[in-house]
Amino acid sequence: MSDQNPVFIPGPTNIPDRLRHAMLVQTRDHRAPDFVETLAPVLEDTKRVFGTATGRVITFPASGTGGWEAAISNTLSPGDTVLVARYGMFSHRWIDMCERHGLDVQIIECEWGTGAPAARFEAALSADKARKIKAVLVTHNETATGVKSDIAAVRAAMDAASHPALLMVDCVSSLASMPFEMDAWGVDIAVAGSQKGFMLATGMVILGVSQKALDHMESAKLPRTFFDFRDMMNSNAKGGFPYTPPLQLIYGMRESLKMLFEEGLDNVYARHTRLAEGVRAATRAWGLDLVAQSPDLYSDTVSAIYVPKGFDSNALTDRAFTAYGLSFGIGLGQMNGRAFRIGHLGMLTDVMVLSGLAGIEMAMADLNYPIRLGSGVAAAQEHFRASRPAILKSAA
Amino acid sequence: MSDQNPVFIPGPTNIPDRLRHAMLVQTRDHRAPDFVETLAPVLEDTKRVFGTATGRVITFPASGTGGWEAAISNTLSPGDTVLVARYGMFSHRWIDMCERHGLDVQIIECEWGTGAPAARFEAALSADKARKIKAVLVTHNETATGVKSDIAAVRAAMDAASHPALLMVDCVSSLASMPFEMDAWGVDIAVAGSQKGFMLATGMVILGVSQKALDHMESAKLPRTFFDFRDMMNSNAKGGFPYTPPLQLIYGMRESLKMLFEEGLDNVYARHTRLAEGVRAATRAWGLDLVAQSPDLYSDTVSAIYVPKGFDSNALTDRAFTAYGLSFGIGLGQMNGRAFRIGHLGMLTDVMVLSGLAGIEMAMADLNYPIRLGSGVAAAQEHFRASRPAILKSAA
Amino acid sequence: MSDQNPVFIPGPTNIPDRLRHAMLVQTRDHRAPDFVETLAPVLEDTKRVFGTATGRVITFPASGTGGWEAAISNTLSPGDTVLVARYGMFSHRWIDMCERHGLDVQIIECEWGTGAPAARFEAALSADKARKIKAVLVTHNETATGVKSDIAAVRAAMDAASHPALLMVDCVSSLASMPFEMDAWGVDIAVAGSQKGFMLATGMVILGVSQKALDHMESAKLPRTFFDFRDMMNSNAKGGFPYTPPLQLIYGMRESLKMLFEEGLDNVYARHTRLAEGVRAATRAWGLDLVAQSPDLYSDTVSAIYVPKGFDSNALTDRAFTAYGLSFGIGLGQMNGRAFRIGHLGMLTDVMVLSGLAGIEMAMADLNYPIRLGSGVAAAQEHFRASRPAILKSAA
Amino acid sequence: MSDQNPVFIPGPTNIPDRLRHAMLVQTRDHRAPDFVETLAPVLEDTKRVFGTATGRVITFPASGTGGWEAAISNTLSPGDTVLVARYGMFSHRWIDMCERHGLDVQIIECEWGTGAPAARFEAALSADKARKIKAVLVTHNETATGVKSDIAAVRAAMDAASHPALLMVDCVSSLASMPFEMDAWGVDIAVAGSQKGFMLATGMVILGVSQKALDHMESAKLPRTFFDFRDMMNSNAKGGFPYTPPLQLIYGMRESLKMLFEEGLDNVYARHTRLAEGVRAATRAWGLDLVAQSPDLYSDTVSAIYVPKGFDSNALTDRAFTAYGLSFGIGLGQMNGRAFRIGHLGMLTDVMVLSGLAGIEMAMADLNYPIRLGSGVAAAQEHFRASRPAILKSAA
Repeated sequence: MSDQNPVFIPGPTNIPDRLRHAMLVQTRDHRAPDFVETLAPVLEDTKRVFGTATGRVITFPASGTGGWEAAISNTLSPGDTVLVARYGMFSHRWIDMCERHGLDVQIIECEWGTGAPAARFEAALSADKARKIKAVLVTHNETATGVKSDIAAVRAAMDAASHPALLMVDCVSSLASMPFEMDAWGVDIAVAGSQKGFMLATGMVILGVSQKALDHMESAKLPRTFFDFRDMMNSNAKGGFPYTPPLQLIYGMRESLKMLFEEGLDNVYARHTRLAEGVRAATRAWGLDLVAQSPDLYSDTVSAIYVPKGFDSNALTDRAFTAYGLSFGIGLGQMNGRAFRIGHLGMLTDVMVLSGLAGIEMAMADLNYPIRLGSGVAAAQEHFRASRPAILKSAA
Repeated sequence: MSDQNPVFIPGPTNIPDRLRHAMLVQTRDHRAPDFVETLAPVLEDTKRVFGTATGRVITFPASGTGGWEAAISNTLSPGDTVLVARYGMFSHRWIDMCERHGLDVQIIECEWGTGAPAARFEAALSADKARKIKAVLVTHNETATGVKSDIAAVRAAMDAASHPALLMVDCVSSLASMPFEMDAWGVDIAVAGSQKGFMLATGMVILGVSQKALDHMESAKLPRTFFDFRDMMNSNAKGGFPYTPPLQLIYGMRESLKMLFEEGLDNVYARHTRLAEGVRAATRAWGLDLVAQSPDLYSDTVSAIYVPKGFDSNALTDRAFTAYGLSFGIGLGQMNGRAFRIGHLGMLTDVMVLSGLAGIEMAMADLNYPIRLGSGVAAAQEHFRASRPAILKSAA
Repeated sequence: MSDQNPVFIPGPTNIPDRLRHAMLVQTRDHRAPDFVETLAPVLEDTKRVFGTATGRVITFPASGTGGWEAAISNTLSPGDTVLVARYGMFSHRWIDMCERHGLDVQIIECEWGTGAPAARFEAALSADKARKIKAVLVTHNETATGVKSDIAAVRAAMDAASHPALLMVDCVSSLASMPFEMDAWGVDIAVAGSQKGFMLATGMVILGVSQKALDHMESAKLPRTFFDFRDMMNSNAKGGFPYTPPLQLIYGMRESLKMLFEEGLDNVYARHTRLAEGVRAATRAWGLDLVAQSPDLYSDTVSAIYVPKGFDSNALTDRAFTAYGLSFGIGLGQMNGRAFRIGHLGMLTDVMVLSGLAGIEMAMADLNYPIRLGSGVAAAQEHFRASRPAILKSAA
Repeated sequence: MSDQNPVFIPGPTNIPDRLRHAMLVQTRDHRAPDFVETLAPVLEDTKRVFGTATGRVITFPASGTGGWEAAISNTLSPGDTVLVARYGMFSHRWIDMCERHGLDVQIIECEWGTGAPAARFEAALSADKARKIKAVLVTHNETATGVKSDIAAVRAAMDAASHPALLMVDCVSSLASMPFEMDAWGVDIAVAGSQKGFMLATGMVILGVSQKALDHMESAKLPRTFFDFRDMMNSNAKGGFPYTPPLQLIYGMRESLKMLFEEGLDNVYARHTRLAEGVRAATRAWGLDLVAQSPDLYSDTVSAIYVPKGFDSNALTDRAFTAYGLSFGIGLGQMNGRAFRIGHLGMLTDVMVLSGLAGIEMAMADLNYPIRLGSGVAAAQEHFRASRPAILKSAA
């Protein structure tokens, strides 16, 4: 049944037919001119999505976690200090990776539901007179809590402290769905993936890398081969990969970029905001609270929602799946049992979102949540009606 | 956008991925053993869906209209009398075809919203002392009005009149979605199509034919070649077609039958009833009326719903399409402007149906219908919750 | 195995991925604007392939046989005389259809391996002082014998006799593969199909119809509904079909036309000639004879090849299938057992053709044919090398 | 054009439709029961292909190179010594990776065209009294030279030296195409990929890991997170991945295993041998030499073939691609310009192989190679005929 209903996990997202078909491509010779002519424009066009003119795009056949590893291992050496704020599962995991790679991780502990603490970053960086901190690591969109952080504010904090550290950003669950301005925000490495805003299958991690980050490649002592920027850039320059490329995903990426540019990136972002507002309207109608603590933190790609006291969010997501064939995100880490998540990113429509809201409402009612059937749907309907784009084109 | 949202027209229906992939088959030699081994079981297994052990299944690469033409041209001769009741657009079109083929059509005019009038059939047949009537033509499920007729009652009427006419039934929009009992009901020719309950692309008309009907083949004088039962049966017996077969649809049909039998025909019918009841609950919640005049006539595959006086149903379906990317059936014939239709057949889930209800509600609200947003959805949710099957399996 | 090797039957042809994916389209509402905007240009663009500016294109969800039935039933009345030359299985079948529809068929019997006998047509038409002959029926490319007829010569014969009969041409296995000039040749109805030069699945018959043919619609007395030109044209004018259209095939047709026009029709024809010449070079190298009696008759889409005396062509095609997974056309009608056929139409490459030649050579050797392994392949290779287009582009 | 012709690169291989369709699966929730029930049997069944009952299978979303990195980083520490023989590009690259990861690489230089030197391994291991060598790294099938090494002999050498080092084997281009016996050969880590014998898209590296190798996980000091065995095994035990899994490839893998087991692994290997023998017969007929120096070294998945003195192998592969749309493997490393490669692994048929041979022959002739057109094809045909399996079943 899960093939018929959309998924409402915060990625991988529902793959539009157009992209499924693009990825159906039969094996071609990745050393032949076809491929060479395909790869270069894909890398170039992806820069627009990252918001960079001066950086470059590097991709590996891996998941987002591999992208984090590429980010640190190409720029840092064992013993280097990195500054990270922990406010969710994904920032937590990145910290864990840094520790395993022998980095000295200076952690700013934050309450889950909050975002990147620019002021505390500034204080920590200002205190670092010896400039031991080599990189600041930030999760743009914390998928576990549905919190979007203000990267521009982090950059401002770094600038205020006149600190030369690299700024690395995890934008796996935000890129191509929410505005991202790598150049304007002074981001040095941004890590994204094929399976979220790009609406493709999992299997390609996509990085935006600044020249400043590239300048660290030779001095970085962390060992790497599969994720080595140098090998990849050298091969890319000749039109290839240092090993077998993920051909189907690259053709998929070409088509994904076409779709994004046809719709217009600003329209893509506006659509995500609009759908997210619908979900938030439903949440209010149910009388439930978001994990994100204030409107400026609300993510437009995923909403983490507290269940009422005395209820178990895992029972809710289980019910939705077993009774109605619907997949929602479970609560991760300290949110397990306390919150569930609705993914609303990628190629969704109003009525797809409404179907998810209608389904979770039924599951809530089955479990005797104090909500009224149809109330969340009605609130979202009201929002969708009021905010409907003037002209609606078919996606032929 | 229409590729992402389900369609709610009463056919062609949403094609499950499993069947789309089955129809992706590359060209094979239709004279090779592969094909021979594929076709025979498909024809045999389809008999179960028609509810016939004694009849046979004949298929042509055409639409349902072609099946009607096959039915009459293989059994009747110019000047033959047929008895038909007109209570909707599809019964009307069949009448028109008979007239064009030089048949003498004895029409029983009925109000739209009613079904096959067994008593009036009996009267007409009893009055036909000369046995001029060669066939009684009945539309099992009138797609224009959402009315299901009682074929067993028509058969009882024919038997009561001891009339030897053939009984021909259009079950295009009912077969494989609602119970059909060709043998039990004494149906001589039943006409179905690939694009409704079989969930495939349009392009194959599928007929169940009794031995009694086959006995008329040689004497029937209406000209036909493409639709000739004899050529088809002769070729089928050797494993082929008298011309190029619709290979992709036949492979699709094989997989469709597997899906139907895996779910179980009774479960398929029960699922259609349950979803239809949800739509009817929503209709009541909106304060709207079905075109079908009484519960015994309610179709489980399509609901035709009157819009309130003063409203134009075409404006409603247009709004749903242009504003929300949703396709519903327009009002046909005398219902044009007065009623819209919700198709709820084929491979649908609860939440897919809810998405359609939520969408049409928004369109109604946009046009100032006197309905409350979320009310229809809530009524359907309530029904779906109450009637949820105990165990829900994944469709892996 | 047949999914991996190309088929070498004279249609349906190997479907390029690009068209298979185009036909994967999910169900859309055929009454919605999307479809309306799709259908009209498809019909219009198809005119270029027929070589007509003044005629129109009409399509039905059926096979080529249905197209023949549409051609005669929309223009003729029972008892009308038609003039046909019989020189193969397909001309034979069309004759049979005319007879079943009550037409008076004046047959010119020709030896199989010859084409349309322009001089004998002229004689027959000149002798028809009463102008009883209403139509001349010609098979452009006789798939059973691999013979291409000269339609311009038939038109010249008709003109020489100043005869007003309609000229109907079966171009099922030639259109979109070999030049066809409906206007220049004065063809009134041309019948083609989706599954040959258009490289699609079977299921759509495509007719080019002149205004002169359309002028016969009202007076034509043969009964028809499914295949009625008037209903179809009326519905097409409003953007639809009189019944459920074969949506997937129409989207496929749109993409097929794009492919044909991208390659250029002249290039498509030249490619077919070049590949056919390769097959004929192989045939000569094997010391075998074509059924087509002279080079001017050689078809560029299918070659029918006599097996040596004492050999059974069915054993050969069986061997190729069972031993090497290759499908070739069997000998039809009086050629059964005496000739086999190699289809070389649609989207084929040099090396695909060579694979077929290599395979049939192995089967011949297995059956002790007096041929040398590799000899046919080498002759075709020599031709392909010598005639290679200067520039070869990838079909990205 | 490359979509129509098979590719003859030594991987990625031509993907059968059945597997392309399996990988078309829409996004599902990788934390839902569906996925859990899918992953475990896939991992378990893959053990059969590795030939291990006691080891386990670990997979990462990456290419083969990533698998090498996983192999060393989960078992070794900086400064550890590894023993490797260099006899081709892939053994060379693995050496390079080890050096970059701070390992002390003891290299046995061998002539390209030879395989793993068991005797020299034994000498080196016997000389290592201090047991500094922690691992022996061997490339089972050197894709650059078309050389298959005798892993059992390497194991025997290790045993003869009573050396406790781990035995790591790259079987990327051999597994699922040529026999591999992990348990019998005492292999500790075997590295394979999705895109060769498994006939899938690139993107999943698949490792067979012995308990002995797993025992090194905790002590191994090379940093890793993405490729950490422990995280993966812990997550797999709960039915998931430590990050987003490559869902489409896992569903593809499930179907690939079905295909392999349906054919039977022994039949799969025999088919590869038979096709490879055909290519070698053609090579002899052309008067060319294999890079592999003796028959016991011949790979059944790829043949590297020297071009005659004075010719440039790159010109040949370019010609084949630009003139005939065929992709062959170029000469890698010291073979660049001197040899080209024919990949003959994955789902190929006799006639597909013949099409490649016919194509490269044309390219050779175009470049004035001293070969006779059709000669290689004929030699392969002769072999294929003689070795044809008694019964050939369709791959319905």
